[in-house]
Amino acid sequence: MKTLYCYANNEIIPIEKAGVPVSDLLVQRGYGIFDFLRVANRQPLFIEEHLDRFFNSASVMRLPINESKEEIKKIVATLIEKNNLEFAGIRLLIAGGDAPDGYTITQPHLIIIEQTLAQPSNQFSTKGLHLASYKYQRQLADVKTTDYLMAIWLQPWMKNKGADDILYYQDESITECPRSNVFMVTKENKLITPAKNMLRGVTRKNILQVAKAQGIEFEIRDITLSELKSAKEVFISSSTKRILPVSQIDEQIYNLNYSKSISYNIFTYLLALEK
Amino acid sequence: MKTLYCYANNEIIPIEKAGVPVSDLLVQRGYGIFDFLRVANRQPLFIEEHLDRFFNSASVMRLPINESKEEIKKIVATLIEKNNLEFAGIRLLIAGGDAPDGYTITQPHLIIIEQTLAQPSNQFSTKGLHLASYKYQRQLADVKTTDYLMAIWLQPWMKNKGADDILYYQDESITECPRSNVFMVTKENKLITPAKNMLRGVTRKNILQVAKAQGIEFEIRDITLSELKSAKEVFISSSTKRILPVSQIDEQIYNLNYSKSISYNIFTYLLALEK
Repeated sequence: MKTLYCYANNEIIPIEKAGVPVSDLLVQRGYGIFDFLRVANRQPLFIEEHLDRFFNSASVMRLPINESKEEIKKIVATLIEKNNLEFAGIRLLIAGGDAPDGYTITQPHLIIIEQTLAQPSNQFSTKGLHLASYKYQRQLADVKTTDYLMAIWLQPWMKNKGADDILYYQDESITECPRSNVFMVTKENKLITPAKNMLRGVTRKNILQVAKAQGIEFEIRDITLSELKSAKEVFISSSTKRILPVSQIDEQIYNLNYSKSISYNIFTYLLALEK
Repeated sequence: MKTLYCYANNEIIPIEKAGVPVSDLLVQRGYGIFDFLRVANRQPLFIEEHLDRFFNSASVMRLPINESKEEIKKIVATLIEKNNLEFAGIRLLIAGGDAPDGYTITQPHLIIIEQTLAQPSNQFSTKGLHLASYKYQRQLADVKTTDYLMAIWLQPWMKNKGADDILYYQDESITECPRSNVFMVTKENKLITPAKNMLRGVTRKNILQVAKAQGIEFEIRDITLSELKSAKEVFISSSTKRILPVSQIDEQIYNLNYSKSISYNIFTYLLALEK
C-alpha cells in the first residue's frame, strides 16, 4: 500500500508518522472538531462551504485556527497532488491541544488527512435504506465535534434490528442520522427537512438550493416521527453519499417509484452541481 | 523538566514519543474510556477499585483489553519506579483503535500515563466551593468515557458566574459534577447521594463504606435541586480531591461550621483509608 501524506505539526508528513500527543485535550477529554469533504477527479468538492462550517465549529468551540482558509486550501491542494488519488476524502481536524492541567484549551492544532474513499455511484440507488429510530440528542448539535460515541456504541443495536443506519429523534421531533441529514416529501410533493438540533450539512444546503432553483416547494421546520412515517418519500443526504432513499423506518415501509420521485429529480441536479 | 515514561504500543517509552494515530477511533470519533487514580508515597491508591471500574467501562463500550488486571498493576508499578514521583496521577486509557472504515472497533489499545499531581491537603478545606447548576446529562453516564466536551465548553460560562465547578442536573434531579460526585447532609444528619445517571466514584464508594462503618445514616436516591439547596451540608468527592465542602449553589449559600460537620467527620476517616 502506498504511503499517504497528511498535514500535522505544521508540516506535510507520512500519515504513519502523525500522532496526537497523549496529553492532548482531544485524547484525554474528547475535545475536538472536524470536517470531511470529498475529492473527485482530484478536485475538492464544495471546499468553501466545508471551510465555512469548519471555521464556525472552531469558533463555537473556542478553538483558534492558526492557518487561514487560503492556507488550508493550499495544503489540501498539496496533499491532493502529492497523494495522487483521483477520488478521496479530506478530513480537517482540530485537536484541543496540549493542556498542562488536562482541562484548559491552550494551543489547538490543525491536522489534515487525505484518505482513500470510493466515489458514490452516479446512478441513483434503488436499494432503499432501513433506518432504526433512537431517542438521542447530540451535544452542541450545530458543531461538527468528534463526538460519535453514541453512533458507534449503537452499531450492534442497529445491526440487531437489521437496520442500515440510525435516525435520532428527541421530544418527538426527528433531527438527523449520525452522519447525514434527513428529508421527507409529503403527499403534496412538498420537501421538508428539520430546522434545528442537527448539523447543517453541505449537501443539505445544496439540496435546498436545487429545490429553490427548480421551483420545488420546501419547508424547513420540525418533523415529528409520525409525520415522517406518513411521508411519500424519505431520503438522507451527506457529502459522501449525496442522496440515498429510505425504504423503511422502524416498522414503516415506503414503496417508492424511484424514477418518478422528487428524490431522484433532486439527485440528478446534485450530480450536475459537482461538475 | 525530567522525562516521564508511559506505556503505549505495548512498551514503556518517553511520553513525548507516545501518540495516538490520527486514524484512531479516539481521535476521529471520540471513542475511548479512561480511569484516573492517585499515587501517594509511591503507592497507587485503591487500584483494585479503579481497575474494576476501568474494566467495566471497557466492557460496556465493547473495548477488549489485551492486558490482564495483574499485568496492568505491574506496568503501573514499573512506571512509578521508573518515574520516581512521590505523588502523582496515573491515567489508564483505552483508545478505540485503528478503524479502516473510520467507524468500526477493531483492535483497541491501552495507554498508561503517569503525570505529576499535587497531593490534596491533609487539612479539611474550609474554603467552600461555589457550584453553578446546568441542565445536562452525560451520555453513558456510568462509563468513564473521554467525553468531557460539555465540561470544557462550559468553563467560560462557569467562570462568568464566579463559580468553581458545574453541577449537572436533569429532570429536576441532580446527578454529578463533571469530575466528582455530590453528597448532601439533611438537617437530620442523614447523608444522601444520587443513585443513578452519574459515574460511580471510587471515593463515593469509600465514603459510603465509612458511613456504614461509623453508623452514619445514609440513603442512595434521587435528589432534586431544590432539596439539595435546603441541605445542611453539601460536599463533592473525587479521587484527586477526596472531599471538598460546598459553600454556594447558584444563589443558595451554605454557612457551615466545618469542624462540627458530618463532612469533616467523613474526611478524617477517608484520610485514614489511605494509610
